[in-house]
Amino acid sequence: MAIQKPSVPKGTRDFTPEEMVRRNYIFDTIRSVFKLYGYLPIETPAMENLSTLTGKYGEEGDKLLFRILNSGDILDGYDSTKGLDTKALAIHVSEKGLRYDLTVPFARFVVQHQHELVFPFKRYQVQPVWRADRPQKGRYREFYQCDVDVVGSYSLLYEVELAQITDDIFRRLNLDVVIHINNRKILAGAAETAGYPDKLTDITVAIDKLGKIPLEKVLGELAERGLPGEAIEKVVPFITLEGSTDEKFRFLEDYLSGSETGKKGIEEARHVLTLLGGTGLRANIELDLKLARGLNYYTGTIFEVKATGTSIGSICGGGRYDDLTGIFGLPNMPGVGISFGADRIYDVLNEKNLFPETILATTRVLFINFGPEEEKFVMKQAALLRAAGIPSEIYPSAEKIRKQMEYADRKKIPFVVLAGKDEMEKNLLTVKNMQTGEQQSLSPGELVRTVSPRTE
Amino acid sequence: MAIQKPSVPKGTRDFTPEEMVRRNYIFDTIRSVFKLYGYLPIETPAMENLSTLTGKYGEEGDKLLFRILNSGDILDGYDSTKGLDTKALAIHVSEKGLRYDLTVPFARFVVQHQHELVFPFKRYQVQPVWRADRPQKGRYREFYQCDVDVVGSYSLLYEVELAQITDDIFRRLNLDVVIHINNRKILAGAAETAGYPDKLTDITVAIDKLGKIPLEKVLGELAERGLPGEAIEKVVPFITLEGSTDEKFRFLEDYLSGSETGKKGIEEARHVLTLLGGTGLRANIELDLKLARGLNYYTGTIFEVKATGTSIGSICGGGRYDDLTGIFGLPNMPGVGISFGADRIYDVLNEKNLFPETILATTRVLFINFGPEEEKFVMKQAALLRAAGIPSEIYPSAEKIRKQMEYADRKKIPFVVLAGKDEMEKNLLTVKNMQTGEQQSLSPGELVRTVSPRTE
Repeated sequence: MAIQKPSVPKGTRDFTPEEMVRRNYIFDTIRSVFKLYGYLPIETPAMENLSTLTGKYGEEGDKLLFRILNSGDILDGYDSTKGLDTKALAIHVSEKGLRYDLTVPFARFVVQHQHELVFPFKRYQVQPVWRADRPQKGRYREFYQCDVDVVGSYSLLYEVELAQITDDIFRRLNLDVVIHINNRKILAGAAETAGYPDKLTDITVAIDKLGKIPLEKVLGELAERGLPGEAIEKVVPFITLEGSTDEKFRFLEDYLSGSETGKKGIEEARHVLTLLGGTGLRANIELDLKLARGLNYYTGTIFEVKATGTSIGSICGGGRYDDLTGIFGLPNMPGVGISFGADRIYDVLNEKNLFPETILATTRVLFINFGPEEEKFVMKQAALLRAAGIPSEIYPSAEKIRKQMEYADRKKIPFVVLAGKDEMEKNLLTVKNMQTGEQQSLSPGELVRTVSPRTE
Repeated sequence: MAIQKPSVPKGTRDFTPEEMVRRNYIFDTIRSVFKLYGYLPIETPAMENLSTLTGKYGEEGDKLLFRILNSGDILDGYDSTKGLDTKALAIHVSEKGLRYDLTVPFARFVVQHQHELVFPFKRYQVQPVWRADRPQKGRYREFYQCDVDVVGSYSLLYEVELAQITDDIFRRLNLDVVIHINNRKILAGAAETAGYPDKLTDITVAIDKLGKIPLEKVLGELAERGLPGEAIEKVVPFITLEGSTDEKFRFLEDYLSGSETGKKGIEEARHVLTLLGGTGLRANIELDLKLARGLNYYTGTIFEVKATGTSIGSICGGGRYDDLTGIFGLPNMPGVGISFGADRIYDVLNEKNLFPETILATTRVLFINFGPEEEKFVMKQAALLRAAGIPSEIYPSAEKIRKQMEYADRKKIPFVVLAGKDEMEKNLLTVKNMQTGEQQSLSPGELVRTVSPRTE
């Protein structure tokens, strides 16, 4: 066979051990906090039937689905009078697609397993998704999503809980963040106040761009979307509002006094922020009336999290929805959820140098190999260390010591044990601390204590 | 939109929380042991270029690849004079496929990242693979593989290490297993002894069926594959050999005395088994001359693991190979590896009722919700428990206590806390042990100690 220069498909990535331990540091932290609040893991297949996926992400989304070719004779049953028609062929040759996000598969899952689940159902899901997007810096065709949702309850306690979870995760990752909170009903109230409740989507899509493009352009876009000058004028004080949370609420009480929906939004937001105030969060919470996230299915609270002191944008976001599963035949299934962007979090931690050094040293002890007899001796010592939970390796052959030391060095192994004939006779081990260069002669029991991470 | 009855593609599965905690119990155990021996995680993309995948799994394997439809106009550049030709179309419309196993992507990875890696490179990889197989009981189109390999060394110490890892994993899973060991060079020696070294593949394919079909049929197959009666007669004592490991070695010394390859195989097997003898394994080790695994790329040690007292076959297997990466342009890359079959291990643990009960209770404490005031009080208590690492939930609304209790019951939550006005005033918590029914009145600090898994 011809020799091939190996590569991966564009927009996809390999993860080397160094990247994996950092990614796992993020994933493990996220998962451990999810568990602490009683959320349970699920997984769904990488492929879904196209009938499950199409029509759920808009026309653009449908184009970005990766479709899987049917097995066997792909033209079997194809109406050949249609000839070589791309669209007809694409539909005929494929009936499955790769997961585009975790929300639609989760909705399908809830409906399909509704009789096995305990509601309110608190689940988390950490799996890759695939999108046939144009690859660019920081955007990939395969990436992980970490979603946490609770469905089957309207209780605002879950909004509070999700903000606590978010705070807890970034506290453990030692990252300063601001949790932005808004409420879809407040936005709807503002659209009503402007006299254009039916323009809510247009208004939120434009508002969503505030901070990315200048105010004038946002207002221009509102005009383009059919909002008259008079209505735009009414919206301006809302979207340019500054001040403390209390000041914002005072403004809203007055501004939204003519909208029942708006008043309900204020009540919900106030309840969530008040409860959060008593929980001693590390993160700053901001009532952010500009937060819209452009997603129509949110009906209540909206979340977005940004790391402070970096240009990297939103690192997680979510909100409350009223009807997750109606499309699959199960109406009235409310819920609230947040999605953590692992790649963005990775980039932020990298930029701020917040990955702990210790996670890179995965093996703690390397035993130098002096030959067959010494090998048997150190195998016993390595077994003792492993039994104590200390990751240990034996170099596989009696190469030059310099080469063996280089292996320890490149793998960032902090301790090297040299045990030759002399040591074997005395049942002692010479331990070298690779950072300080210090050498000690220790008994097997002393070795365990010396290299244990807890007693370092 | 029309309502759809939701389902997953055939041969794929959802995993509910109950299944996930069991699966994670297996995966976490496997991963923690891999780490203890200095193996590092990697991940590769779900999709690979078809040029990486095709031709690596034989003609049958190529048919079982899931191919991904190209994005955009799939007929762009198609030679329309070829018309509606299934094969030509299938090749034209798809240039990527889903990972079929972890070995070929690993080989590609090693070549592509050779200058970043430290050799010997010890890696593990736990990811799903996809095969367009006919779905049947216990065989899926999406399933996880857990592979552990070391490449870049001929040292037999790694064979010993992989057997130790295997033993360590099944010891932690509390499962009795037999590790079957053979050596490809011993099989090659037997083919030489029979006078048909070029029939090695035919002989191993037939031998591989011993135990599944009667000896006569195996011999019949050998004849069909062109081995004359005289040669078959010579093979019979080899494949029917019974006895202790020492007896088997004594037989082989004599039987393979005319084959240099065979003698090398004996030496390797003896070395591995001798070293393993000194490591105090829990598993039984068996020199199993019938073990062939039908895979041509193994060149030395061959492993297979079976659980005792079950009809479920091999639960993990592997071996040594001389040339992992030649096909991708990097020759002389020897290695040895083992693959753990997560689904089979799951089935065995299930059958033998070996999943610990404790892994199912993921939340330890549920706080009953008596209303807004009590909610604030128990939020503080729940925060204390979580800070102590104890997974805790608050019921989201003040429903009937019976309903809240039922939630705890169905989620197998072992402790329920009832804190009403009375308790709030005294800063005490009434704790109910859901298993014994016993109730206690405790201070917040006492609660932490009482519900902590360590003091139970």
